[in-house]
Amino acid sequence: MRVGHGRSDQASDDVAVEAPLEIRLNGSSFAVVMRSPGHDLELSAGFLFAERVLRRPDDLGTIRHCTDPDAAHRENVVDVTLTGASALALDAVLRGSRRVIASSSCGVCGRQSIDALAADCEPLPASEAVGDEVIAALPARLRERQTAFDQTGGLHAAGLFARDGQLRDVAEDIGRHNAVDKVIGRLVLRDALPARDLALFVSGRTSFEIVEKASLAGISWIASVSAPSSRAIELAGTAGIRLIGFVRDGRFNVYT
Amino acid sequence: MRVGHGRSDQASDDVAVEAPLEIRLNGSSFAVVMRSPGHDLELSAGFLFAERVLRRPDDLGTIRHCTDPDAAHRENVVDVTLTGASALALDAVLRGSRRVIASSSCGVCGRQSIDALAADCEPLPASEAVGDEVIAALPARLRERQTAFDQTGGLHAAGLFARDGQLRDVAEDIGRHNAVDKVIGRLVLRDALPARDLALFVSGRTSFEIVEKASLAGISWIASVSAPSSRAIELAGTAGIRLIGFVRDGRFNVYT
Repeated sequence: MRVGHGRSDQASDDVAVEAPLEIRLNGSSFAVVMRSPGHDLELSAGFLFAERVLRRPDDLGTIRHCTDPDAAHRENVVDVTLTGASALALDAVLRGSRRVIASSSCGVCGRQSIDALAADCEPLPASEAVGDEVIAALPARLRERQTAFDQTGGLHAAGLFARDGQLRDVAEDIGRHNAVDKVIGRLVLRDALPARDLALFVSGRTSFEIVEKASLAGISWIASVSAPSSRAIELAGTAGIRLIGFVRDGRFNVYT
Repeated sequence: MRVGHGRSDQASDDVAVEAPLEIRLNGSSFAVVMRSPGHDLELSAGFLFAERVLRRPDDLGTIRHCTDPDAAHRENVVDVTLTGASALALDAVLRGSRRVIASSSCGVCGRQSIDALAADCEPLPASEAVGDEVIAALPARLRERQTAFDQTGGLHAAGLFARDGQLRDVAEDIGRHNAVDKVIGRLVLRDALPARDLALFVSGRTSFEIVEKASLAGISWIASVSAPSSRAIELAGTAGIRLIGFVRDGRFNVYT
């Protein structure tokens, strides 16, 4: 639904596809990466190279999409076999020094399989609406408090707003997801979750993980200045979240 | 160095600070997150909540910056203690179902400590220069091939260019780092690394991990339409990489 300047119209739009890719090493799940489908073998090879699992091309035995006819999501699974030194090191990779998990931004770290994604995002109850004029004013209100961006051009921001548009908290970070973790983390520290009376506004695109973080925190309104991904829209739909994008120049799009 | 329209001038500029934060759980390293320093306790609490390590505020015992006087990077380490059900589940978190690692975008996953970051990025030998006019033309050349962005507004792109500006490969993805993994991954699959004759161009900001991925692939020129982070500049300096940002309107900045 396109909203703005006193009108709202239903319309159809293209969105960027986001889907999880599971990378398996010699039969064991190694990573789930949110990505745009396409060039999955290249992505898997480049990811494993950057993660120092593949150190030279000779380490790569085979690489292909999953061919198990019984597997769900076969198009989202790449099977990699390692040879040589990498295969010998695989046990250490899977069990040893790398068992601990980190991500600045993806939010799906630590979940080994596609089935584990968002399995615990319960639908939120219906909540009080936010007025159109309040939504349209969010970017300007966030920008007023976004001081570091003006100096460097390099930071993302996340803000928590009350239903009347009052800014309750804002955080900036070089990582979009970190900015969201910072404002929700403050609620965790204050024992103020679930935050059913707040709306989340983000300066960049809305990906699956941002919707997931909001869902876990009980936040049922998300707005952003930019585009949501396909998976963000899907999860917002099932999690009972109002998802709004492209809040610009007094207009915005409502996706769920 | 600001370059453009036939001139180049030395100038000083602010950049967004990027630094690793190590989050420890009951004394064990759990995650390294690249972030903008500030609100580190909120970030840690929000990250652990999103990762389902903290499920309710009562799970949190203490949370503070590292106080060990002998520790390096104390300002970049947060010590968290868990209580109750979370503490009981900690062993499973550290060793069990979550031992396998993933990230769509951060590139530091799987390294448990700050010391492990980029330790293997050897300085690259000096390489042939890329002409100013070639650099200024990169955004337009990449954009010509960036088809999905025009439809959705939601995708990042990475391109590999020859020294004369010829586009050798391009990939789009909802994740910046995925796009880089895709073009470098293709070189891995073709046994074409190190790629000392190629330059990497990215559509978004340049973070630490993008410089790290280029360094591992032997690519010694990186240009982007947007801002680099402090840590990206530092690593580019030590890794012998020419780092260029804000390539726009016939002008650009050279950072290293």
